[in-house]
Amino acid sequence: MTTVFYNTQHAPIGSFASFTLGAKGNKGGLGLELAKPADQNVYVGFEESPGRFACLPFFEQSSDEAARFDVEAGGGTSRSVLVPVADKTISRSLSPGLDVWNFGPVSFTIHTPVMAAPDPDVAKEPDLKLAYAPTVTVEITVDNRGGDRDRRVIFGFQSNDPYRGMRRLDETADGVAGIACGDFLALAGCSPGLASANGFNPQEILDERDAFNHSFGIGSTGLLIGVAPAGKRVTFRYAACFHRAGQATTGMDSRYFYTRFFPSLESVAEFAKQNYSALKRRGDAFDRRFHKATDLNPAQRFMLAQAIHSYYGSTELLEVGGHPLWIVNEGEYRMMNTFDLMADQVFFEASLNPWTVRNELDWYLKRYSYTDRARIPGSPIEYPGGLTFTHDMGIANHFARPGFSVYEKAGLDGCFSHMSHEELVNWVICALIYLHKTKDQKWLRKTKPVFRQVLTSLLNRDHHDPAQRDGVMSLDSSRCAGGSEITTYDSLDVSLGQARNNLYLAVKCWGCYVGLEALFKKLGETSRAATCRDQAHRAAATIGGAADRKGLLPAILGENVISRIIPAVEGLIIPHALGLKSALTERGEYGALIVALKRHLRGVLKPGVCLFPDGAWKISSTSSNTWLSKVYLCQFIAREILACVSEKAMKTADERHAAWLLTEENAYWAWSDQIVSGVAKGSKYYPRGVTAILWIK
Amino acid sequence: MTTVFYNTQHAPIGSFASFTLGAKGNKGGLGLELAKPADQNVYVGFEESPGRFACLPFFEQSSDEAARFDVEAGGGTSRSVLVPVADKTISRSLSPGLDVWNFGPVSFTIHTPVMAAPDPDVAKEPDLKLAYAPTVTVEITVDNRGGDRDRRVIFGFQSNDPYRGMRRLDETADGVAGIACGDFLALAGCSPGLASANGFNPQEILDERDAFNHSFGIGSTGLLIGVAPAGKRVTFRYAACFHRAGQATTGMDSRYFYTRFFPSLESVAEFAKQNYSALKRRGDAFDRRFHKATDLNPAQRFMLAQAIHSYYGSTELLEVGGHPLWIVNEGEYRMMNTFDLMADQVFFEASLNPWTVRNELDWYLKRYSYTDRARIPGSPIEYPGGLTFTHDMGIANHFARPGFSVYEKAGLDGCFSHMSHEELVNWVICALIYLHKTKDQKWLRKTKPVFRQVLTSLLNRDHHDPAQRDGVMSLDSSRCAGGSEITTYDSLDVSLGQARNNLYLAVKCWGCYVGLEALFKKLGETSRAATCRDQAHRAAATIGGAADRKGLLPAILGENVISRIIPAVEGLIIPHALGLKSALTERGEYGALIVALKRHLRGVLKPGVCLFPDGAWKISSTSSNTWLSKVYLCQFIAREILACVSEKAMKTADERHAAWLLTEENAYWAWSDQIVSGVAKGSKYYPRGVTAILWIK
Repeated sequence: MTTVFYNTQHAPIGSFASFTLGAKGNKGGLGLELAKPADQNVYVGFEESPGRFACLPFFEQSSDEAARFDVEAGGGTSRSVLVPVADKTISRSLSPGLDVWNFGPVSFTIHTPVMAAPDPDVAKEPDLKLAYAPTVTVEITVDNRGGDRDRRVIFGFQSNDPYRGMRRLDETADGVAGIACGDFLALAGCSPGLASANGFNPQEILDERDAFNHSFGIGSTGLLIGVAPAGKRVTFRYAACFHRAGQATTGMDSRYFYTRFFPSLESVAEFAKQNYSALKRRGDAFDRRFHKATDLNPAQRFMLAQAIHSYYGSTELLEVGGHPLWIVNEGEYRMMNTFDLMADQVFFEASLNPWTVRNELDWYLKRYSYTDRARIPGSPIEYPGGLTFTHDMGIANHFARPGFSVYEKAGLDGCFSHMSHEELVNWVICALIYLHKTKDQKWLRKTKPVFRQVLTSLLNRDHHDPAQRDGVMSLDSSRCAGGSEITTYDSLDVSLGQARNNLYLAVKCWGCYVGLEALFKKLGETSRAATCRDQAHRAAATIGGAADRKGLLPAILGENVISRIIPAVEGLIIPHALGLKSALTERGEYGALIVALKRHLRGVLKPGVCLFPDGAWKISSTSSNTWLSKVYLCQFIAREILACVSEKAMKTADERHAAWLLTEENAYWAWSDQIVSGVAKGSKYYPRGVTAILWIK
Repeated sequence: MTTVFYNTQHAPIGSFASFTLGAKGNKGGLGLELAKPADQNVYVGFEESPGRFACLPFFEQSSDEAARFDVEAGGGTSRSVLVPVADKTISRSLSPGLDVWNFGPVSFTIHTPVMAAPDPDVAKEPDLKLAYAPTVTVEITVDNRGGDRDRRVIFGFQSNDPYRGMRRLDETADGVAGIACGDFLALAGCSPGLASANGFNPQEILDERDAFNHSFGIGSTGLLIGVAPAGKRVTFRYAACFHRAGQATTGMDSRYFYTRFFPSLESVAEFAKQNYSALKRRGDAFDRRFHKATDLNPAQRFMLAQAIHSYYGSTELLEVGGHPLWIVNEGEYRMMNTFDLMADQVFFEASLNPWTVRNELDWYLKRYSYTDRARIPGSPIEYPGGLTFTHDMGIANHFARPGFSVYEKAGLDGCFSHMSHEELVNWVICALIYLHKTKDQKWLRKTKPVFRQVLTSLLNRDHHDPAQRDGVMSLDSSRCAGGSEITTYDSLDVSLGQARNNLYLAVKCWGCYVGLEALFKKLGETSRAATCRDQAHRAAATIGGAADRKGLLPAILGENVISRIIPAVEGLIIPHALGLKSALTERGEYGALIVALKRHLRGVLKPGVCLFPDGAWKISSTSSNTWLSKVYLCQFIAREILACVSEKAMKTADERHAAWLLTEENAYWAWSDQIVSGVAKGSKYYPRGVTAILWIK
């Protein structure tokens, strides 16, 4: 890695919260329900010489807040007692569960609970409480064995909430020293010997000789202060705590699931102190799994860890009338359970906690599905459409009205148009993967009629006349009101943006038909199974038949679009994830398609087509906007399914992709998806990168 | 007035909320629990020509938010359809209850409920509900009688909350079109024919042809759109609504009192629509009182109205375990019920709703009183002190721990030191005024022992040896830990900042002894009454005896401080407010003191002493920091009690003071207190200016 100064999200599961840290300056901190890092000053340091503190560089020297009060005197002096340590003396090591910073005699560690999220309907209360406690634990170890005097150790932050100020948690929590912003953010001391202090700035606090004055209630800075005695090596423990009480959402009432166990910020802090060791160990098992994947190169390891961290920062477990509702917010956009992200995150969730997939699918069925009609482009005639699903469930803790997303508009051909077909396919993918993973017969029985409706809907969007079907989407939803549906690639050009006849969506459709065939066979519904097989073959033929003389496939089938796209291969993941490996062999039933896609991918992975000059992947030949989550997915397909690229080229690509995330501008946003010519222009602070989970067992 | 573009707070009583408007640009908007204006874009306009809207200048042309999503296309065009109307075509008229803007055919009016706040323990539910409904009503009238086509009329805002986004209220409220930010801010349409619309910016919304797309859920801009038909004059009605559900405070749990009647933002909007006319009329009676005061000059009228508006923006009525708790937040500082502000705001509260004074005093007694010891400067020996009160009850909806303020620190001699004596005196002032105003015998019976304790405390702070008492504070609280107490003038130099031997505090003490003498007499406690009288005479002698050859009094008695201060006369308000007019006559019992103070005031009200060169008042000769709330109070004393200044000079001063509030920099902050050389440097957005209530009957 070229730098250690990149933001990483450290998030308790399902809290829509993140203790973000790593970028230099006031670029991290404790954020709850935010679309970005909290931009707070964070103070981590030790007393290098009397009254002078060597700190990690996570703050700006602040202006003097006291001057607002003492207007004539202009407040105290602004001499700084905090000195950022030199960059080169800082080392960092990141895994999904651990973020360790070393400088001088100090080791500073944040533990992230990457673990299976327990199913609220099944798990026992102690497990739920531990997993969903809205807190991440932190440790500071100071080796003062060579020191001949006591050194103070500090950890704290400056709040910047517009509504609430900083306070000492000691006054309201039972036996916990801490600092808090309002009723929603806290740093709790979980070791003996930590004292809380409040003031305008660190200098004022650290210069103070009368402990009474540490209870000053006005300043925005809070510190926890410990002392590392001369000749000793000591470890101080802390917990970054989050809490949102009461009604959490509008549009539909809900509360955070954790409020079932934790009525207040104080109760979180008290629990953290009492259960520190168990909380700290929450991410251990997954970290072992991560470290076992010794075949990953360092760039891959970094990207996987970083992506997982950002995923958790977007997770939110709510309770609606006693029923759990799992939400993954959409990073900087905060749209809720955006379905086209779900279909990429499903590999991660199915691997750790498949019940969240079922939960999302059920809520989509119940509240965010609709039945439309379908139109052939250019004609106002409406044909039967069918059941499908909205783009999302809402935004920023506001639930959209039933049957509608916040995103989809009528009459458009580009961004913000409807994704009726894309989301229909995504429901199939997620449902099939869930069933494959869990063999949940109860859910299958309940959902069987939906699969039938979904098949009808897929067929209707191909063509109302069975004879004219080619396995590929040809009709737009009536909700477009004459506009055209788009795909998840909403901000790309037509090569990936248009849904109708789209190569990416066509292969995904093929994968769905393959998967549905297997499902209906198992259900004994042979006629439907045959229809699916027939459709899969039509799709394969349509796709394969579109290859040009060089064997390259057009991004839009049959519309003279010159673009070439990597995501042509995305749909191959579906049979793979469902264990239908025979559908993926070159000599199998769909061998011609596999060969065509392999030839296509080989053909486009060239500079000037779908490679940037430096070897990084470019998802469309006609766009400089590339999406890392999709690149990760397609890299996996290239490596594991098509086995059609050299590991050297892949490693080069991995390094380039990692380097994007590490530029100073991009590193602020932790993990980001849409990289335009090297700059994270959209989908920042984003959960979708967990497609990289496919890289490890 | 030199400009119409100054912010004014329009606040529902007790909601700690303000719809602030008037400064140009994105400088106003709907603010809840903020320390400053909300800095939102506010859109008020009408369709001047097709697709082109003439608006009040309360917005900045915004950058294109859509570009964050559609990263390649860069979003839509940013052509503006909103054009601010020319300054000179705008007129404004402000009273406490009405803020009326006229431009072209449009009249835009905000109604502020300046009225007696009903006592929750006594008033009937409908009255409470109406008075405390957290909403202010707004009207837009458009005269399109000369128009030959329909014109759209818009009112809306762009939200900037870090946690929640913009949504349409229609989806959750019963029969109310509206726009809302999260669960806490809304503009509700209270007329038929208003439709809500959401989007990235006003242009996108107003260009939209498909009404379906007005339910777009992503953008931060919301508008209510009405149509003024050709040939008609129409009025649209709106309500700016605020709501904070659940636990409102930390340190001590509470909720907003209004949540007793309004469980949600939606319920406020529904109530506003159903009870619009009654809500609109809430401020009518007080406005009549205001308009009767025909002797006020225009500068006075402006300052009184503006001060009242800001006072309400700081008010907050909570409920703690079923008991009401009235709070006045301290403007930009948001300290709660700062006692030294209470003693200035008491004239306003006693005039409208004296129960709030009793409520504050009771809470101070119950939770924010303490008993200290007292020290003579330079000596560590502690003598008996007595009962006194903290500086405040907390800050920004955080209650300080019992017996302590958030403000007071140990070991200091300046800002943030203790105000033990100042607040003791302030308790006496508020309690005596409350009793005088209400004759509340029940409270007097309950509080009688406290008055005795307070007297003891006053005496002990003068001197433990009765023979050495001079009626003036000589000992500092043990809580200062060797430091010195300060007065409310915490940011001024020693002339007003030091409490011990302070002339300002000495005259207030005198006033308290005069008031307490009368009280103890009534109670038949002749010995205590005699003590009070004795102390009043000692104080008067000490003060009068300190005059120099020119008859000027030193700011600090007997300490060779050269400063001269106007607030020497402040304490005269106490006997005046208690109806003890005989104590204020030049031939009465304290005639010598009155003569001395009159001579002093005449002597200092000169350029180079306590007048700025332009005739504005300067509270201390040695500071350029002057406080308008105190100036208003002392002006009243100069006019009505001492009758010692010319009305011409007073008018000049009033005009200068008003001009300060109207500079572009200061006008952002609505009403501000601390003006340093013409600039509002501290105590901005502040409630204390209601001392000006003394100017009217």
